[in-house]
Amino acid sequence: MFKKKAGYVVAVVGATGAVGKETLEILEERKFPLTSLRLFASKRSAGEVLPCQGKEWKVEELTPEVSFVGVDIAFISATDDISREYGRRLGAAGVVVIDDSGVFRMEADVPLVVPEVNAHALRTMPRGIVSIPNCTTTPLVMALKPLQEAVGVKRVVVTTFQSVSGTGAAAMDELMTQTKDLLAFRDAKAEVYPYQIAFNLLPHIGSFNSDGDCSEEVKILEAPTLRVTATTVRVPVLRCHSEAINVELERPLKPNEARAALAAMPGVIVYDDPSKKLYPMPLDATGKDDVYIGRIREDESITNGLNLWVVSDNLRKGAALNAVQIAEHLAKG
Amino acid sequence: MFKKKAGYVVAVVGATGAVGKETLEILEERKFPLTSLRLFASKRSAGEVLPCQGKEWKVEELTPEVSFVGVDIAFISATDDISREYGRRLGAAGVVVIDDSGVFRMEADVPLVVPEVNAHALRTMPRGIVSIPNCTTTPLVMALKPLQEAVGVKRVVVTTFQSVSGTGAAAMDELMTQTKDLLAFRDAKAEVYPYQIAFNLLPHIGSFNSDGDCSEEVKILEAPTLRVTATTVRVPVLRCHSEAINVELERPLKPNEARAALAAMPGVIVYDDPSKKLYPMPLDATGKDDVYIGRIREDESITNGLNLWVVSDNLRKGAALNAVQIAEHLAKG
Repeated sequence: MFKKKAGYVVAVVGATGAVGKETLEILEERKFPLTSLRLFASKRSAGEVLPCQGKEWKVEELTPEVSFVGVDIAFISATDDISREYGRRLGAAGVVVIDDSGVFRMEADVPLVVPEVNAHALRTMPRGIVSIPNCTTTPLVMALKPLQEAVGVKRVVVTTFQSVSGTGAAAMDELMTQTKDLLAFRDAKAEVYPYQIAFNLLPHIGSFNSDGDCSEEVKILEAPTLRVTATTVRVPVLRCHSEAINVELERPLKPNEARAALAAMPGVIVYDDPSKKLYPMPLDATGKDDVYIGRIREDESITNGLNLWVVSDNLRKGAALNAVQIAEHLAKG
Repeated sequence: MFKKKAGYVVAVVGATGAVGKETLEILEERKFPLTSLRLFASKRSAGEVLPCQGKEWKVEELTPEVSFVGVDIAFISATDDISREYGRRLGAAGVVVIDDSGVFRMEADVPLVVPEVNAHALRTMPRGIVSIPNCTTTPLVMALKPLQEAVGVKRVVVTTFQSVSGTGAAAMDELMTQTKDLLAFRDAKAEVYPYQIAFNLLPHIGSFNSDGDCSEEVKILEAPTLRVTATTVRVPVLRCHSEAINVELERPLKPNEARAALAAMPGVIVYDDPSKKLYPMPLDATGKDDVYIGRIREDESITNGLNLWVVSDNLRKGAALNAVQIAEHLAKG
């Protein structure tokens, strides 16, 4: 389905957004074999010029008239509407679509992939689309996978601390503008979020239509019996999502054994020495590729209980890096 | 033990700290029957003049030579050392000590009291000391008590989002100074906390000597079988502590029944209509006396599971208000 080539024509849809820009950086850092790059954004950003791999690329306006002929891979990280409109069409036209939206995540014929966890799911992509989990689910499953393999995971209670970059560049601007206004004794204007986010917390991510459980967690773990409950909270942090994860394991696993299992997981760094005040923090994980795990402690309130604190750059492993890793995996054949 | 009087001589130890100042405001707001007020602080703050109930009171330096003769009630909210040094001595000398530190919380002959939860424990104060729970435990037990009474609470997983005012006024200054410095592209200096707190999270409250469980939660609930695990996180918020609480109940309780039970609890306000984007936030709860509870949802990952989001002003119900309410309770006789 995906032909091995010396180089690929890559499209980035949503190129000027927070994830899009990170995608360009990562394509450059990791020397992804590019033949050429096509950048797409809304009319407002069309004409901007962005650098990647030593060249400059002009942003095109995304319209239904745009031809994607010759494009091998399209990274889509824009709105759900854009994913809905272009994802299916490009997938059907033979472009491999790596989609960051929630539109396809629960569709049975669209693999939902974190390469370290379930790269094998890329073997069948009947619609030409692969989905990546949302930016809190990816680090969560990276943390759960080694525990699942070691002793089995029975139930998970996760509480998230999500940075504003998860919403996008406009939300990062809003946090900074609100902070500046408040320091100058001006009112903080809320436009991206329903309320002020500076010096505040919003227990509200996305829409309230669901019961709060992140259903895609279940799918990607390929453990239909996994039971998860989640509370998701927006915090006044620019980058990186953090998660307090409480796990009920199937069988006993000492904290030290958990540390060893987690440390052996590719893409995970165990950073856990409270006696030296070493624990993961958003500030330290910003711009990093790995998922950092610390505060690994026994939870004595239950048999086989374990607490973890996980921090990961939501724009990197939570989004752009995971997408590029999928492309790399496909390119390797 | 505690004589009913028309007015009391009250001492506030740590009067210039964040909790001390709040105590003065609350004594004024609630018209606590004061005959006179004695304010104590370290040498640095001695001589400051603070208002309360229409008068101005001069801050005295706290030294071992200070006489507390004639003082009826002493609120202590300073350091553990101060509580250790003065708590026992004043209690033995007939002063009713209402202590905000962790020094006495686990002592069998010192009641640990939230009046709405266990005012009856004030009947016996053999050492003249009463302890108040820490600023996250008080709202937690306020939320759990009605659930405990309705159907029983089996196990609790709590994740806290604690504001810097929990550390004190210096930490509030540090957050503001760091924020200003970062906005001016200067480095943020960390002195109160080991790392930058502005735009960051520290999964670290107090000391790491314990396993992370808040053992005083068990005592105050008077439910020795209650099982609790906690992850506590400092967030860049000035005031109010928030908590994501996952509860496993003994028997079934629908979210609407939980809302009704919680709403009937004195000192609790249920603020829970996600469809209208109504949920508790630190910004809204600042300066308020009540404990706000929202995001009340069934947790389907377990039988009889319930999720709550609780926000409370840590300087009010979490500290000064709870202490003054205890004094009021004692004064009522």
